[in-house]
Amino acid sequence: MKTLISITLFISQLLFGQINSEYYSTIANEMVRTALTDLWGYNMTGELCKLGHRFSGSENEKIAREWTLNQIKLMQLDSVWLQPVMVPNWVRGDVEKAVLHSKTQLEKNELKISAYGGSVGTGKNGIRAKVVLINSFDELKTKNVKGKIVFYNIRFDDGELIPFTSYGKAVTYRTRGAIEAAKYGAVAVMVRSITSKKDNNPHTGQMRYVDSLAMIPSVAIGYTDADYLESILLKNIDLELTLTLSCKTLPDVLSYNIICEIKGSEKPDEFIVVGGHFDSWDISEGAHDDAAGCMQSLEVLYLMKKLNLKPKRTIRCVMFANEENGLNGAEVYGQHAVNHKIEKHLAAIETDAGAYTPRGFTLTADSTVLRKIQSWLPILKKTLIDYVEIGGSGADISRIKNAKALIGYRPDNQRYMDLHHSANDVFSEIHPREFSLGSAAIALLTFLISEEGL
Amino acid sequence: MKTLISITLFISQLLFGQINSEYYSTIANEMVRTALTDLWGYNMTGELCKLGHRFSGSENEKIAREWTLNQIKLMQLDSVWLQPVMVPNWVRGDVEKAVLHSKTQLEKNELKISAYGGSVGTGKNGIRAKVVLINSFDELKTKNVKGKIVFYNIRFDDGELIPFTSYGKAVTYRTRGAIEAAKYGAVAVMVRSITSKKDNNPHTGQMRYVDSLAMIPSVAIGYTDADYLESILLKNIDLELTLTLSCKTLPDVLSYNIICEIKGSEKPDEFIVVGGHFDSWDISEGAHDDAAGCMQSLEVLYLMKKLNLKPKRTIRCVMFANEENGLNGAEVYGQHAVNHKIEKHLAAIETDAGAYTPRGFTLTADSTVLRKIQSWLPILKKTLIDYVEIGGSGADISRIKNAKALIGYRPDNQRYMDLHHSANDVFSEIHPREFSLGSAAIALLTFLISEEGL
Repeated sequence: MKTLISITLFISQLLFGQINSEYYSTIANEMVRTALTDLWGYNMTGELCKLGHRFSGSENEKIAREWTLNQIKLMQLDSVWLQPVMVPNWVRGDVEKAVLHSKTQLEKNELKISAYGGSVGTGKNGIRAKVVLINSFDELKTKNVKGKIVFYNIRFDDGELIPFTSYGKAVTYRTRGAIEAAKYGAVAVMVRSITSKKDNNPHTGQMRYVDSLAMIPSVAIGYTDADYLESILLKNIDLELTLTLSCKTLPDVLSYNIICEIKGSEKPDEFIVVGGHFDSWDISEGAHDDAAGCMQSLEVLYLMKKLNLKPKRTIRCVMFANEENGLNGAEVYGQHAVNHKIEKHLAAIETDAGAYTPRGFTLTADSTVLRKIQSWLPILKKTLIDYVEIGGSGADISRIKNAKALIGYRPDNQRYMDLHHSANDVFSEIHPREFSLGSAAIALLTFLISEEGL
Repeated sequence: MKTLISITLFISQLLFGQINSEYYSTIANEMVRTALTDLWGYNMTGELCKLGHRFSGSENEKIAREWTLNQIKLMQLDSVWLQPVMVPNWVRGDVEKAVLHSKTQLEKNELKISAYGGSVGTGKNGIRAKVVLINSFDELKTKNVKGKIVFYNIRFDDGELIPFTSYGKAVTYRTRGAIEAAKYGAVAVMVRSITSKKDNNPHTGQMRYVDSLAMIPSVAIGYTDADYLESILLKNIDLELTLTLSCKTLPDVLSYNIICEIKGSEKPDEFIVVGGHFDSWDISEGAHDDAAGCMQSLEVLYLMKKLNLKPKRTIRCVMFANEENGLNGAEVYGQHAVNHKIEKHLAAIETDAGAYTPRGFTLTADSTVLRKIQSWLPILKKTLIDYVEIGGSGADISRIKNAKALIGYRPDNQRYMDLHHSANDVFSEIHPREFSLGSAAIALLTFLISEEGL
């Protein structure tokens, strides 16, 4: 296998090794220096985060979008426009309470929770029921959960090399937990927060229902309160819990993808998209997820202008609407990309994995495209990119089905699940150097694709 | 060039590709899982940091050493011993003041400073003199600094990809600043803190004198106070500064390298050293620098025992004394390694570059050794090691001149110069996952060398 890789690398470098390395190395160094010293995207992210959350369909999202649009206009790019997207309008409301009742004296009687996006509310008086500790969907069959509240006590697997792997194992209890519990007559579900950080800030996220089953409320519990609830339940004392949620889903509302671009100097109809998602969860600044990705993408265009580069192909920045609870922005843009008669999408690069130090890019592409981009590794390494591999790209660009390469930016990810979808995801958790090197890495790859094609 | 690398990789993989990948992959995964879930080394680092600084020759260092020795004894390794090392005994004392005097009303009159290690004091009444702003050693020739205090206003170059490069450019003003300024009759030097973080905690470090020139006091100024001092000096208002330092150098005292090992099951006389330095600066917990490195090295032995591995060669952990201001521990151990008639040092791995996410190893070794270790990359990647390259190893192992490979562990380094040699270097700046993956990466490479030789 390793021998095969070597031969492949060797051949690919013979085929693709003819780029002007000196020129691109100079560009790489200038991108790095400019990103690190200007801190343009980093500072923009700070300003954006000061405006609060950007939850789909919210007034906050609108304010943040208008601010961003104004900032883009100041950049004097070749074009900027809003692409309409209808998005869900789930609102959390003011009430979110989980109160314990027991004849036994408890250490505390209220748990820190956060309703999952899309959850129904409980009505004003809440739902009072016994709580059943459940460790897997299989256990639902063996324990009587009818009329009770299911507590999915699924721990984040700290032993995985990549935190996203642990997230992947646990997240099904968030997305499908209410559906599975409803099958057995449960009246609500509570899920241990999916996080690598053992604090008490709940980590929210999207959940789902199916039409054929009762829609029961679904919430995350703070990690340490989940420990606490577990400890009480294991004592087998009498316990009931009242869950009160005011959240509800209103009719869809209008939002927008924010789009801006630098027109290609030689092939203006060929497009390279760079993007992240503009929306965030409503309990978070969404700094890493994904204010950072939006502003790194915008900084790609900033760097092109600042370094006076005239890319051959059009570089388009897309800040997608509604990634967190619907992916509607991705759907609308994807249809545009696939159906447009003139615009040809060559590649799309998504940055939605945190603003930590660059490590690599993963590609959905054929082996020729892979080898071509791999042949640029000695240049990309100047922005701390150590690998280019086949792999996932990103939810938002996944609908651009006609692109030759869908590319995911892969920064270091060891801290990401500490803050994902929670109040921990704030601007102060972003390091200026790490953020800016990400912008430089994406800008460099974008420029290489623009100049060399795929 | 790239073609050459490919051919080389190809040949090396043919030559060295015969290791049992499946076996080592299993070991790698177990090391990762155990390190991440036990957090043994991470927790040990936390306990060590609670004891405060570990400055060479200090009472604190002794207390920390005794605690560490007791912890090692609990591990029931094959041997543990202390190797005597005479170390400098510089003491900071209680007084460290820089007071400004001007007829003009100033915003504030005191600057935050930290004497450099090895600096002479000022006497009780301090040194009062005018301050001259100097931007390079060359400027010393053109400005009259006789009888004055030189303020080296050298900014950290934020535009460099690797913060250590920026450090390398500026550090000469710390190490040689007093020597150069004394040539022109200056009475003291103050140096802008060498750091990527723009706060006001001074970053200290070692400085030097030469016998032929006056020994003048030398201190670091906090970064924002350096901005402040610069702003006053650029206004050309009348200004004097009184520098008062109580620091002094006492006769050398006895310290120790802390050494422990697991005896090799097949080749007990062949050694692989893993190590970091035990001492820290006196104004810092020295968490990343280098409590972490010591405890990651010790965790290598912990992981061997926990996974019930019986390495063929002897694995020796060395916690070096006096790296920060003398390197005397390295000298003593190096002489031991070079002169010992039975012990044969195969390799040494140093971890003293922070406890961030693993990225690579750099080697001082010949090309055969390099290619052999590079052929293990697919296994090492399971601990997030993306590269093995020729490069520096580390100050402490540099004296083990007879080893086949001197290896530096290279974690992500973008945050390191924020905290280096300052009060910012505290345990809370270490991330448990990043630390533990470092231990796993070093343990895996150590085990591969032990089993496969070099």
